Amino acid sequence: MLKLPDLQVIFQKYLKDNIFNQTPQELYQPVNYILKLGGKRLRPVILLMSYNLFEETVEKALPAAFAIEIFHNFSLLHDDIMDEAPLRRGQPTVHMKYDVNTGILSGDVMLIYAYQYILQLDDQSNIPALMRIFNQVAIEVCEGQQYDMNFETSQEVKIEDYLKMIELKTSVLIAGAMKMGAVIAGAPEKDAHHLYEFGKNIGIAFQLQDDILDTFGDPEKFGKKVGGDIAQNKKTYLLLRAMELANGPRKQALSDLITENYIEEAAKIKAITQIYTDLGIREDAEKLKEEYLQKAFEHLNAVEVPDQHKEELNRLANELMGRET
Amino acid sequence: MLKLPDLQVIFQKYLKDNIFNQTPQELYQPVNYILKLGGKRLRPVILLMSYNLFEETVEKALPAAFAIEIFHNFSLLHDDIMDEAPLRRGQPTVHMKYDVNTGILSGDVMLIYAYQYILQLDDQSNIPALMRIFNQVAIEVCEGQQYDMNFETSQEVKIEDYLKMIELKTSVLIAGAMKMGAVIAGAPEKDAHHLYEFGKNIGIAFQLQDDILDTFGDPEKFGKKVGGDIAQNKKTYLLLRAMELANGPRKQALSDLITENYIEEAAKIKAITQIYTDLGIREDAEKLKEEYLQKAFEHLNAVEVPDQHKEELNRLANELMGRET
Repeated sequence: MLKLPDLQVIFQKYLKDNIFNQTPQELYQPVNYILKLGGKRLRPVILLMSYNLFEETVEKALPAAFAIEIFHNFSLLHDDIMDEAPLRRGQPTVHMKYDVNTGILSGDVMLIYAYQYILQLDDQSNIPALMRIFNQVAIEVCEGQQYDMNFETSQEVKIEDYLKMIELKTSVLIAGAMKMGAVIAGAPEKDAHHLYEFGKNIGIAFQLQDDILDTFGDPEKFGKKVGGDIAQNKKTYLLLRAMELANGPRKQALSDLITENYIEEAAKIKAITQIYTDLGIREDAEKLKEEYLQKAFEHLNAVEVPDQHKEELNRLANELMGRET
Repeated sequence: MLKLPDLQVIFQKYLKDNIFNQTPQELYQPVNYILKLGGKRLRPVILLMSYNLFEETVEKALPAAFAIEIFHNFSLLHDDIMDEAPLRRGQPTVHMKYDVNTGILSGDVMLIYAYQYILQLDDQSNIPALMRIFNQVAIEVCEGQQYDMNFETSQEVKIEDYLKMIELKTSVLIAGAMKMGAVIAGAPEKDAHHLYEFGKNIGIAFQLQDDILDTFGDPEKFGKKVGGDIAQNKKTYLLLRAMELANGPRKQALSDLITENYIEEAAKIKAITQIYTDLGIREDAEKLKEEYLQKAFEHLNAVEVPDQHKEELNRLANELMGRET
């Protein structure tokens, strides 16, 4: 089985070979720009890993892996416009470097090229099935983004709503990438299903982990600013759980900290973190994360390939969760 | 063969039966809103007409016709954001009625649903071929929109650039709709090709006709304001041809009328229309339109089905061109 760094190198080469040289360059330059911003290429690599469970070499799955990476970057590009985000991976976002219209149109053409690459797969008889998986994922990612935007102004977000939102916005793409890898390899439907569920549960666990680290992470190791979610009143699992558990004066204090604007940011982060600690929110979040992780590994275990084939997926999952392997 | 009004009724019923009831409603309401704004449903009907050349009933082609209509409205939705257009068919555009973020995201999900409806066609073995046609068209429509935006600020647009732009932005969708109808019906590749070329050439002729009517049309009959293109300095065939032909003082006058802002709009429209008339621009445009029309009908004639099957397409094409039939 190929290792994570090998797969990253293979994918990176394919990406380089498939740079967009078409005209008009005003349309395609921004596509190359965002694709070159980098990142760990987690989603395409996960598709290749899933394929690699069943097949020794991964070349035949590369167009689908690229499709997933293009789709992911399309969604980042349009989300950045909607969120008015100035930076992406430390660089100006597409709509800042170019303009909003360029961002909209270049994003549109990326979405179309995701389909274009799926169409390039060798086995054309597989294409309707793959398109169905991809399309379902793509629709759900849009729905997740809409729920996320709705939650910003809603006062009635429940924990189950939040979990559904992160499933749609984040997890189904990882799940779909795993399933597509399996389907391209001609894996049995049962295995493809288990890999989808593995990806979905890992994705949710990963987002919960991100929520935890955003408040309790080591500032040296965590890529973003610790406390950012609290500063922005982001309705993460931590905040929603605290709202659910707090009562009496503590509930009032939490509510005041969220709604009043005159509190200094560092003081607000400190005070809310203290409430989380008092209520045992971190432990609850860790417990929930572990539940999703356990479900994920049950599905991975159920995939009918030799255990040593799964080693790299196991390693990657543990690495993503910050566990020693 | 089914008549245009019959096909419109059949399509309209399908559209009603396929209203988007999904959640979150914030995402899907704007989709229903733009789809209900109406219009002649020309593109889906043209797909059904093409299919109807080979098959007696059109029900099996309806999902693809709906895909084409969804795609067309997606492109209108995103274009309206880019153009900051306040109205569409006399009603507020999606980004005005809702907001820009809603417009972006609802447009995205429409593009995905276009593929979703193609996937619903009965004959799954046809899907890769249909997706290829659709994807090529979708890419070209984006490229056409980018060229159109580029031309707004470019001082070096040639007539051939303009013709290429309208081919991409407008004609290939009509062409692709025709070709998809033929492919779904299992028509020979040669016929599908001729129908594509018929649609492409009709589309270009129709855009040239629109350019002519925008300046020389009867204000009572023309839907938009006569002279609108001139007022906006739009680089239509008429203006580009006039720039090419004019010289000496007339070239200077034309150039002044375009670049100076202090001229009153009605006077500007009158003066430029006079230059067009002096230079015989209308005749040139009519001649070019006729060339495209002739090419179009040559391709329609070459389609190997009985002539009476083609009557409705002939009638529609002539009707679009404002000819008596």
